[in-house]
Amino acid sequence: MIMQKWTRSGDFLRFCCKSLTYLRSKENNSVYSSVSGFVHGYESKSKLFEPNDGNHNIELQHRCSGRNLGMQQQYRCFGSSSASKIQRNPLFSSLDAKDISYFKEILGEKNVIEDEERLETANTDWMHKYKGSSKLMLLPKNTEEVSQILQYCDSRRLAVVPQGGNTGLVGGSVPVFDEVIVNVGLMNKVLAFDEVSGVLVCEAGCILENLATFLKPKGFIMPLDLGAKGSCHIGGNVSTNAGGLRLIRYGSLHGTVLGLEAVTANGNVLDMLGTLRKDNTGYDLKHLFIGSEGSLGIVTKVSILTQPKLSSVNLAFLACKDYLCCQKLLVEAKRNLGEILSAFEFLDNNSMDLVLNNLVGVRNPVSSSENFYILIETTGSDETYGREKLEAFLLKAFEKGLVSDGVIAQDINQASSFWHIREGITEALQKAGAFYKYDLSLPVEEIYNIVNDLRGRLGDLANVMGYGHLGDGNLHLNISVKDYNDELLGLIEPYIYEWTSKHRGSISAEHGLGVMKANEIFYSKSPETVALMVSIKKLLDPKGILNPYKVLPRSLISDDH
Amino acid sequence: MIMQKWTRSGDFLRFCCKSLTYLRSKENNSVYSSVSGFVHGYESKSKLFEPNDGNHNIELQHRCSGRNLGMQQQYRCFGSSSASKIQRNPLFSSLDAKDISYFKEILGEKNVIEDEERLETANTDWMHKYKGSSKLMLLPKNTEEVSQILQYCDSRRLAVVPQGGNTGLVGGSVPVFDEVIVNVGLMNKVLAFDEVSGVLVCEAGCILENLATFLKPKGFIMPLDLGAKGSCHIGGNVSTNAGGLRLIRYGSLHGTVLGLEAVTANGNVLDMLGTLRKDNTGYDLKHLFIGSEGSLGIVTKVSILTQPKLSSVNLAFLACKDYLCCQKLLVEAKRNLGEILSAFEFLDNNSMDLVLNNLVGVRNPVSSSENFYILIETTGSDETYGREKLEAFLLKAFEKGLVSDGVIAQDINQASSFWHIREGITEALQKAGAFYKYDLSLPVEEIYNIVNDLRGRLGDLANVMGYGHLGDGNLHLNISVKDYNDELLGLIEPYIYEWTSKHRGSISAEHGLGVMKANEIFYSKSPETVALMVSIKKLLDPKGILNPYKVLPRSLISDDH
Repeated sequence: MIMQKWTRSGDFLRFCCKSLTYLRSKENNSVYSSVSGFVHGYESKSKLFEPNDGNHNIELQHRCSGRNLGMQQQYRCFGSSSASKIQRNPLFSSLDAKDISYFKEILGEKNVIEDEERLETANTDWMHKYKGSSKLMLLPKNTEEVSQILQYCDSRRLAVVPQGGNTGLVGGSVPVFDEVIVNVGLMNKVLAFDEVSGVLVCEAGCILENLATFLKPKGFIMPLDLGAKGSCHIGGNVSTNAGGLRLIRYGSLHGTVLGLEAVTANGNVLDMLGTLRKDNTGYDLKHLFIGSEGSLGIVTKVSILTQPKLSSVNLAFLACKDYLCCQKLLVEAKRNLGEILSAFEFLDNNSMDLVLNNLVGVRNPVSSSENFYILIETTGSDETYGREKLEAFLLKAFEKGLVSDGVIAQDINQASSFWHIREGITEALQKAGAFYKYDLSLPVEEIYNIVNDLRGRLGDLANVMGYGHLGDGNLHLNISVKDYNDELLGLIEPYIYEWTSKHRGSISAEHGLGVMKANEIFYSKSPETVALMVSIKKLLDPKGILNPYKVLPRSLISDDH
Repeated sequence: MIMQKWTRSGDFLRFCCKSLTYLRSKENNSVYSSVSGFVHGYESKSKLFEPNDGNHNIELQHRCSGRNLGMQQQYRCFGSSSASKIQRNPLFSSLDAKDISYFKEILGEKNVIEDEERLETANTDWMHKYKGSSKLMLLPKNTEEVSQILQYCDSRRLAVVPQGGNTGLVGGSVPVFDEVIVNVGLMNKVLAFDEVSGVLVCEAGCILENLATFLKPKGFIMPLDLGAKGSCHIGGNVSTNAGGLRLIRYGSLHGTVLGLEAVTANGNVLDMLGTLRKDNTGYDLKHLFIGSEGSLGIVTKVSILTQPKLSSVNLAFLACKDYLCCQKLLVEAKRNLGEILSAFEFLDNNSMDLVLNNLVGVRNPVSSSENFYILIETTGSDETYGREKLEAFLLKAFEKGLVSDGVIAQDINQASSFWHIREGITEALQKAGAFYKYDLSLPVEEIYNIVNDLRGRLGDLANVMGYGHLGDGNLHLNISVKDYNDELLGLIEPYIYEWTSKHRGSISAEHGLGVMKANEIFYSKSPETVALMVSIKKLLDPKGILNPYKVLPRSLISDDH
């Protein structure tokens, strides 16, 4: 609709695309937060976990049939073939009264949680896909307490699951059996902020959004932004090497995290909490803890490079007729928007329809239905320049035929509604019924081939949707189905993993392996590197107590542990 | 001079600051290269190492008195207290004729170097500060040959020093005693380049400048740029976690290196050569090899994210009356130049005088002598915008009194001459005589305090100079002295290390520890983290053959090795 005018008149912009200073976290953070919290169901989390929340609970029982069988316990989790049939490691001890007494002694009564309702929440992931049966959650207040807990658990060989906001997508942050949950939520203090360097030092339990709020009046932003920001902890972000929406601009946490403090399995505190951009003194060990999903240690403090908040943010919602256009548009955007490009997201028409059909009050910003939709966000320090640059870029893209329709958000509400479409896909998926969820990295030119191939393979059995962080080569591949069904799952897995492996992609771009994909690591990593990972795991956690059954193939770990 | 007009007239820019599209690597790479090559003496390297190059050789003999005493050999290196008095590890074997035959068999005659002149060069670092006595250099052509070499050396317990362009500054790339030199210079092929993602995959022996040249016609640049680019190898850059001039913009190699292939001590080839921006499948082991200075493995292939070449580059040379102004200017630049800031370098007046007095044809771009000088470079995709933004920023800075004088380069030659001052300091230092060189990371507000303190401490005994990458908090602290002198060195070390440690700085920002600072690691790292580094070293290299005597404290390694 709007784009049609672009060919006719140079002054279309005055007419239809009013400027937007889309101050995502400056002016109207609350709008954005509510969107993102909502998307991943965080706002309604307590409701989701209500014992009487009928439908959800039926599904929960249907999906997760983990039963407490003591040492012979068997774990079963619907929705992922690979997490099935895990045996509890018989070498792990079981909790006894003396253990509880000890923990109460060091942490105080109120931070040793045995309450069933709170444990129910802590045992279950937010998707209701994974469920453990832990009888104990510990809430340490500082590093020393984490150290004492781990030292004790290591000596008793009690298994431990480190937990932050419990917003993971691969069952990494909930127990598989009866592991002791160590939740760092009480360790939520900002320890230092340097306005010259922009370096923030804080405890691991700080909620990402709270850090953003802390930085806002100082004129800085966090280098990462996620849909889950209202619940996720910075320690969990680091432990899972969270990606998110700003990676295209500010890079991964391996680049922006400057230092860490972590406690290893035996209670040893590793002070790697540097605040320097450059430090070449020995091996940079903090990287071992970034993305190892709590299996090598519990991150207790984080030092991170924040970014100056730039005042001019613009957002365009575009329609493209085919995937090649999306791909070409990305190359052009990288080159021509260069230093101001801050997000490049895509969704296909199936994803759009899913959102339109399942979320209330959402409408397609462009008038006509197309095969693909793109969100381009720019962030810069000059409002006029940023807007004009984006407009000129879009006009050229339209003239070249890369874009068939599109609109630039005119105010914060419009921008928010654009983002709501992209971020609302997960929620819409949940509302639509059963689903399988994959998170793949692939060469950009291959990204949509797997969607098409899978669509052909599953036919009418499922609705296959592709969306994600195109700028980073990250596809979120979702499959909406009528019911969970092992036969159908057999058509999906290992097909998706094999396809990804063949194209040298990653079977987990940003979600991690957790319990869902621990055994699938060889699709993305060579045997030699996995063997070295196992050696490092055994070096740092010889008794295997930290986040067991996850990240690494269970057969390689359980032999000796 | 020029800046005075800034207060008087809004149109000063037309008068004195003509626009510059300083296409550093696009239009006139050769100018820039010759500057940078020259700075670090790479262009004249062969001359420097000529046996009859009188002065240099006298100095070499004076500085390095390493003598081959077989198993009782003692290493002595002038100019750094900590590298002195190293004992050769008696557990290492010595080369015999069978070893040479084996290497000739697998590599071919011509890639097994026993020629004295070539070994003389390979045994000596470019500063002539460190000198080993290796009798053998091997030139593998591919990963398989590197693997065969290491497998053999490990089984025979022959020590190995991995070598790239040998441009290091801490004696990390030359043998200490008779280690076999494995130089990867023949492994210099570009393997793949993806114009969509910008990901480059190449062998470790590619010279950084050659990679830049390869990328130029494709419209991309390397994410790092160093004075040594005409000689240094990408494998060496990765192994030392090289920083350089673009770190402020594109971040460290931990963020931009996407994948590696490395061979561990026993010949095991680790394929971690991913080309994806996001890959959370298990521990990200490549980071162990980034910055571990060849002590955990030899990097054989690199996958790195290159950046689109942006067309508009501007460079300003500014004078500031005190350090506080420099610091404030940095904060303002980060905030106001935001997305186009690509370099923020500083030098003090002593550094400027050193360059003016020792390099031919250099003049101070600003008319009056000041206490500090700043180079600000911007890089963006729009020529007019970039120039106007920089000019407006400088005008404001001048009005605020942060800048007392300054000029924007008007053409490539002028820009080149500005960079020559900053990059010429090392060369000028060498010409001035003996020197001690330190590379520190400190909180920006502390950076110049150490220079002043040291100046007070040394008085007339030395000329203390500070310069470096202010934008990254990286100070290059140089001390020019009449003669090398142990008493004077005793005043410098450990004072500098203690000072740095007290302020939680790093005693090596970007140069690494090498042989120079291996024993000083505790000034920047805690005992627990060093202990873990030692465990990892022993896990990956149980016989300790890879780059011995370096990176980690010798007392912790030699006990068991």
